[in-house]
Amino acid sequence: MATIPDHPSLARIPPGYRQKLSPKAIELIAKVYDWVENECIPADHIVKAQLEQNRWAMPPYIRALREKAKAAGLFNLFLPNHFKESPGLTILEYSCCCEILGRVYWAPMTLNCHAPETGNIELLAKYGTEKQKEKWMKPLLDGEWSSAYSMTEPDVAASDATNISCRIRREGNEYVINGRKLYGNSLANEDVKFYILMGCSDPDNADPWKRHSTVIVPRDAPGLKMVRYMTIMGFDCAPEGHGEYVYENVRIPVENIILGEGRAFEIAQGRLGPGRIHHCMRLLGQGERAYEHALIRATDTRKKPRGKLIGEFDSNIERIADMRMELDALRLVVLNAAETMDLMGNVAGRYAIAQAKVMVPIGVAKVIDECMQLLGGQGLTQHTFLPEAWTYARFVRIADGPDAAHRHQVGRDQLKTAAQARLKHLGYKKRHHQLAKAWDMPVTELFEYVERIEKL
Amino acid sequence: MATIPDHPSLARIPPGYRQKLSPKAIELIAKVYDWVENECIPADHIVKAQLEQNRWAMPPYIRALREKAKAAGLFNLFLPNHFKESPGLTILEYSCCCEILGRVYWAPMTLNCHAPETGNIELLAKYGTEKQKEKWMKPLLDGEWSSAYSMTEPDVAASDATNISCRIRREGNEYVINGRKLYGNSLANEDVKFYILMGCSDPDNADPWKRHSTVIVPRDAPGLKMVRYMTIMGFDCAPEGHGEYVYENVRIPVENIILGEGRAFEIAQGRLGPGRIHHCMRLLGQGERAYEHALIRATDTRKKPRGKLIGEFDSNIERIADMRMELDALRLVVLNAAETMDLMGNVAGRYAIAQAKVMVPIGVAKVIDECMQLLGGQGLTQHTFLPEAWTYARFVRIADGPDAAHRHQVGRDQLKTAAQARLKHLGYKKRHHQLAKAWDMPVTELFEYVERIEKL
Amino acid sequence: MATIPDHPSLARIPPGYRQKLSPKAIELIAKVYDWVENECIPADHIVKAQLEQNRWAMPPYIRALREKAKAAGLFNLFLPNHFKESPGLTILEYSCCCEILGRVYWAPMTLNCHAPETGNIELLAKYGTEKQKEKWMKPLLDGEWSSAYSMTEPDVAASDATNISCRIRREGNEYVINGRKLYGNSLANEDVKFYILMGCSDPDNADPWKRHSTVIVPRDAPGLKMVRYMTIMGFDCAPEGHGEYVYENVRIPVENIILGEGRAFEIAQGRLGPGRIHHCMRLLGQGERAYEHALIRATDTRKKPRGKLIGEFDSNIERIADMRMELDALRLVVLNAAETMDLMGNVAGRYAIAQAKVMVPIGVAKVIDECMQLLGGQGLTQHTFLPEAWTYARFVRIADGPDAAHRHQVGRDQLKTAAQARLKHLGYKKRHHQLAKAWDMPVTELFEYVERIEKL
Amino acid sequence: MATIPDHPSLARIPPGYRQKLSPKAIELIAKVYDWVENECIPADHIVKAQLEQNRWAMPPYIRALREKAKAAGLFNLFLPNHFKESPGLTILEYSCCCEILGRVYWAPMTLNCHAPETGNIELLAKYGTEKQKEKWMKPLLDGEWSSAYSMTEPDVAASDATNISCRIRREGNEYVINGRKLYGNSLANEDVKFYILMGCSDPDNADPWKRHSTVIVPRDAPGLKMVRYMTIMGFDCAPEGHGEYVYENVRIPVENIILGEGRAFEIAQGRLGPGRIHHCMRLLGQGERAYEHALIRATDTRKKPRGKLIGEFDSNIERIADMRMELDALRLVVLNAAETMDLMGNVAGRYAIAQAKVMVPIGVAKVIDECMQLLGGQGLTQHTFLPEAWTYARFVRIADGPDAAHRHQVGRDQLKTAAQARLKHLGYKKRHHQLAKAWDMPVTELFEYVERIEKL
Repeated sequence: MATIPDHPSLARIPPGYRQKLSPKAIELIAKVYDWVENECIPADHIVKAQLEQNRWAMPPYIRALREKAKAAGLFNLFLPNHFKESPGLTILEYSCCCEILGRVYWAPMTLNCHAPETGNIELLAKYGTEKQKEKWMKPLLDGEWSSAYSMTEPDVAASDATNISCRIRREGNEYVINGRKLYGNSLANEDVKFYILMGCSDPDNADPWKRHSTVIVPRDAPGLKMVRYMTIMGFDCAPEGHGEYVYENVRIPVENIILGEGRAFEIAQGRLGPGRIHHCMRLLGQGERAYEHALIRATDTRKKPRGKLIGEFDSNIERIADMRMELDALRLVVLNAAETMDLMGNVAGRYAIAQAKVMVPIGVAKVIDECMQLLGGQGLTQHTFLPEAWTYARFVRIADGPDAAHRHQVGRDQLKTAAQARLKHLGYKKRHHQLAKAWDMPVTELFEYVERIEKL
Repeated sequence: MATIPDHPSLARIPPGYRQKLSPKAIELIAKVYDWVENECIPADHIVKAQLEQNRWAMPPYIRALREKAKAAGLFNLFLPNHFKESPGLTILEYSCCCEILGRVYWAPMTLNCHAPETGNIELLAKYGTEKQKEKWMKPLLDGEWSSAYSMTEPDVAASDATNISCRIRREGNEYVINGRKLYGNSLANEDVKFYILMGCSDPDNADPWKRHSTVIVPRDAPGLKMVRYMTIMGFDCAPEGHGEYVYENVRIPVENIILGEGRAFEIAQGRLGPGRIHHCMRLLGQGERAYEHALIRATDTRKKPRGKLIGEFDSNIERIADMRMELDALRLVVLNAAETMDLMGNVAGRYAIAQAKVMVPIGVAKVIDECMQLLGGQGLTQHTFLPEAWTYARFVRIADGPDAAHRHQVGRDQLKTAAQARLKHLGYKKRHHQLAKAWDMPVTELFEYVERIEKL
Repeated sequence: MATIPDHPSLARIPPGYRQKLSPKAIELIAKVYDWVENECIPADHIVKAQLEQNRWAMPPYIRALREKAKAAGLFNLFLPNHFKESPGLTILEYSCCCEILGRVYWAPMTLNCHAPETGNIELLAKYGTEKQKEKWMKPLLDGEWSSAYSMTEPDVAASDATNISCRIRREGNEYVINGRKLYGNSLANEDVKFYILMGCSDPDNADPWKRHSTVIVPRDAPGLKMVRYMTIMGFDCAPEGHGEYVYENVRIPVENIILGEGRAFEIAQGRLGPGRIHHCMRLLGQGERAYEHALIRATDTRKKPRGKLIGEFDSNIERIADMRMELDALRLVVLNAAETMDLMGNVAGRYAIAQAKVMVPIGVAKVIDECMQLLGGQGLTQHTFLPEAWTYARFVRIADGPDAAHRHQVGRDQLKTAAQARLKHLGYKKRHHQLAKAWDMPVTELFEYVERIEKL
Repeated sequence: MATIPDHPSLARIPPGYRQKLSPKAIELIAKVYDWVENECIPADHIVKAQLEQNRWAMPPYIRALREKAKAAGLFNLFLPNHFKESPGLTILEYSCCCEILGRVYWAPMTLNCHAPETGNIELLAKYGTEKQKEKWMKPLLDGEWSSAYSMTEPDVAASDATNISCRIRREGNEYVINGRKLYGNSLANEDVKFYILMGCSDPDNADPWKRHSTVIVPRDAPGLKMVRYMTIMGFDCAPEGHGEYVYENVRIPVENIILGEGRAFEIAQGRLGPGRIHHCMRLLGQGERAYEHALIRATDTRKKPRGKLIGEFDSNIERIADMRMELDALRLVVLNAAETMDLMGNVAGRYAIAQAKVMVPIGVAKVIDECMQLLGGQGLTQHTFLPEAWTYARFVRIADGPDAAHRHQVGRDQLKTAAQARLKHLGYKKRHHQLAKAWDMPVTELFEYVERIEKL
């Protein structure tokens, strides 16, 4: 039998994947595990209480942890190998950290590994000029600033991003922006220093994939205002929050464009892959923590309907088994996507990423919903973290594109392979004729051989 | 062809049920429809804004409508025929009003038809002494007071109500209450004047169904305090709200007991039937309103992913059909339960009520969830009423007993009918032998004839 | 409390529907019940054994029962009121018979109430000339002949019947038919005397709904041959069976056209409504019988995994409850469709029929599948009737149009109501403005009021 | 980017797993692929036609292929490394062959890799004496004989194997067997030379896991007879078939016991692991082939309801995507189980095997059912292999134990981990108190910290 690395932090990682982790990764994963177990979960209500006092600022407890994390070399773990600041984790390895961090909504923030920072930093690192990196990326990496990504709009179907209509017009050395955006971290939070905004700079371009550009908009640009806080299932998502924004003749210098005019889709494609995997792994962390609550409730000696523990009802035994198997199957889907990106790149990994993006939020939301039900009257209240965990999973079903959009992409790609399947089946037919002749048996003209009709 | 009453207020009621509505009911249903369409839905955000100003009091807008409703003879519609104040609606007829009222969470309150008032009024009417009715029920009927029902506890599995442990001990002319309760409308609301509390008065009684009593506890009874607001999926459910309460040596006069010591289960059984049907019909109203939002979004000309309306994607056409069929099937389930109670009483209707209680919240929550998804980025925000509607449906999956408890009850009752099925199948076997002999055919000893084993 | 008719034959009919049954119907339903319980279920294996001896003829046992049924006045119960031979049952009332008959696959045949005879008789009665009725319908009514309906084709998507391509060309006093058809009762059965065939007589007609005609083709018409038996999930469906047919220059007299050229769709629409309801009710009968097997197995004292009866596992208790509730909800859907047709006609009932057609086969198949699983190793074998019952339910998901086609029809009809919903919501908006002004509150511009965009 | 082996035979294997395949495995997988594509799929109807001629003998075509396979070194691929005849594949590597072989029901037989031979050979290899191996295993390995495994019984709940009651009694140098068995390959097939039978030899042993023994029963042992063929969903499963057997004073020499009296459970545990994985991989092969039929139908230019290809309906695009993602997720589950067994052994892999056993048959049956529906009228007929493929998947939901039994095992194991979860949460509580004190914040007493109750 093989020797498989073992540690509580690896308990849910299948042996085949554990074997692939570098010693450094194993060490970091263990550190992240201790961090979340000791500094984050037990402090959840402290952070909530601090947020009650000041809703739109990073709570002092988190600020303190960030300093500590920086000192301990746990900052920016998400950064891929080619960065000099990178701790050198593969996407697969970082995914293992990500699940652990996901157990507490704000834990990624303590290691500067939270969305949208991670995506924005990668975007600037990949596509920014040196000057842009220095000015906008460095403060993010150092944890001094926060930023936001602004894509969705209230008045078009932004799930098809070619519809994005927020207007970016060049005037001299400036771009003038007009439009309305949804989501993006809230301006209410003073740490948010700029928006990375996708808008339409060339609406008449014949190629719909070249009409859009990505620009940096400083928070204090005149004409930019937040007109409404947005809640998600009633949650205000403080301290980050979501908003609805109006851009009214907002002017930014031309140097704030990223990569160049018309290149927004190039940028978007590069940005979204790993971010989706991070979301999925974090959701699994939420699902596992919810599952632990269910296990504890199932064995709570104070809760005995009809004289039996919740966990002595074999309907609940089956439910627990189903949750366990579902979470573990979903993890395999995400780890496979992460590994595929490591081995073959984001583009070749597109399908595996979409598979995770579609399956994980639905599956985890279902598991958490089941946990809420097992916890009865208290499962829906603030007595547990389950309502916010469910809401996060539900949100990710829509964020970065609703399920249906991803299913469509996958399905259309699959249909392109139909020709090949048909060709193979025509081969079967030909070979069937050969074999029937050789064996002196009647030829079968069934549908399976594709072209029955020709014989009429 | 028959003449079937027709009016927008009846649009969703199947023709067979429309035929059964009295002219008076048809008139009242139409009035309720106009009321909700004109006074409630368009005022939803006014009520929300008033609640922002004062979270724990009935908003002035609702107060005004209640006065108007009383004057218009629309108050207390839920009251069954045998009351002198009753408008004379059957449960079936009131159910039709209930669906319409359900479209807006607070609309039932405008007609004094909201939970838990309806259940508490019925309880007092059915089981209270004349003195209790005069003192506690009349102000409820007049809409002057509000009340609460207090059953669930944090520290036992209250889904099996025999576990309820809040102690009611007689001392002289008083009962002394000690324990902890969850839910029940919040004390924060000044209108709440008393709690109807179920507790354990005789823990050593050999019959577990006679250990509990139901008493009236005035809000200002010393020793009663609310220790925590409870949120449901993050919503505070203002102005009613939920709380966690401690009863510490709370003393009430013995005259506050309802029906007598040990009779709480008798009372509980009578109370819960119609209330469950009301919940279900209100949920259907929420589902229908959500469905309208989906229809509007599906035909919104501003939202065209890949150049097609949302409603031109035939995946969405199928989703809309599924939602339509699901809502209509669930309505049949509830109307059937209502009619069964009208025809045969609450006890004979127990199964049909349970069927509605299990199927409707799950089904409506699923429909609303689908609507949220169809609305994309905005479906989860406060831009629509969908998040609160989903939360209400999700809540009812647990309120008045979680699904599983009702399924258990139904399943156990069904298993009692197995003996009869077995008997019938033994009859088949006997008859099979006769027929086989008569037709000179071999006897078949398959499982279907139940007793194959005997033949070995 | 009302007096509700009671009898084992009505056990599953909800009280509200029982009240609507005429005394005559109640009497007939009871007779059908006794018939199925005593003459059919116990003889299932006798019929199967007779079929083993002669696969493609009506088994002698069934023939004998048909004679007996005719004498007892139980023949042709399905016939609606306006026939002189009709027993006078409403569609609702006959539906109650239909569920009982459905318990055994061949029981409807014993009362001449089986598909496709019922549909063909109705079709001829409704659209046939007196001469056609005399020649083709009377022998069906008398139970002397059998017939078939031929619509589906292997080489087009016949779920959209405008695609039907089998060519009907007039030549002098004859129609010449060329094409290929699937399904339709098998020619192997000598009782089948003619096909009612839908084909394309005017492919160039501008109106696609007027291109097709319906004609009668005698079984011995030269050029008509069956090229293949078709099995359904491996079952040969004897003695009726399914086949694939080639029509090669088949000639029939022009008098064999029904209603006239180009009127096939008019006919098809009238034919399919009640037939779908019959299928659905029969499926419920199968589901109920399967359910009884599950109850019996759940209480079988020889089957005790881990020392408990199958029915003592509360996971199975919940499964039994779910099956019970599902079957009962589906019955409400079918009864409502039947009643809607009675009250408002087939056209107004179109939606309710589609609802039953989509929901019932899926739901019943699921229930039977669950029963098979509860019966473990034997549930999939011929030891019970479950495999054939499941197969029938699965088949109906496709017969008379696959689910998706019906969902599409429903969904498209629903989308036509979107304009009305939008109008209503615009009314809300207007009223909201009035109320906000009256109450001196801010106007809310959220999505709910449809036109937020106008305000930009 | 890494170099990942590429070949059509590896098309569905994720890159991370491809990297792990040895060059020898890659070569063998490619050979198996060519074998199935060229010799098996195109010959499916030839084999079926030969079976029509002689239902209970191995068809000549298969016999010929077996000779060819032996010569080509493709026989007994399933054999693990430690056999001298083993081709040296890991379980993971053989799994890849297994999926390909699964595309045609009888293909595994051509390579002597079919159930129950594989399990029986492994059992004899692992637990047989040298003499037993020589006498019973060698002819199996050489492909001269066939065998059967006999465990299930009609009259007990054999899903809990401690219930197995078939009596094995020692008398002198013989065991006398009395009882009744279900399944096991059919005696009708002359190739079946012996049964490996599990029976009860010591019913009074205090340890229920030591009451049973496993013995070899030659087919011609007097007293053994098959009393009934058994069909699975109507299929006779020729040429192997299933039967019901009576053992009436069947006598075998004591040397036919395997491993010794009372050791049947030891043997059973070792036997079932890999077999379940083989079933699951074969099912995936069936699912993939079904999926190809769906793709072909979706792009069939003759099938255009409403003027669009089936695959142009975006509801079907989504269905195709869902099927693709489901199959791929299930494959990850099986590959992970295979790899876990390779790395850590069958016992440590117990959970992963159960996960595959529960999830795969349900998931693949669902996919095939969807394919049948997409193929409309023909999907249920013998025009495609879909009905038999669905039936195989449905069968595996029960074979080797029904879902629920496996879920129970998993759930009970999981509940044993609850104590650890509780301990961890108590740790959170303690740490929360520390942190609250350090940060001068109030302690939170919510359920999450497990012991709220203690504080009352």
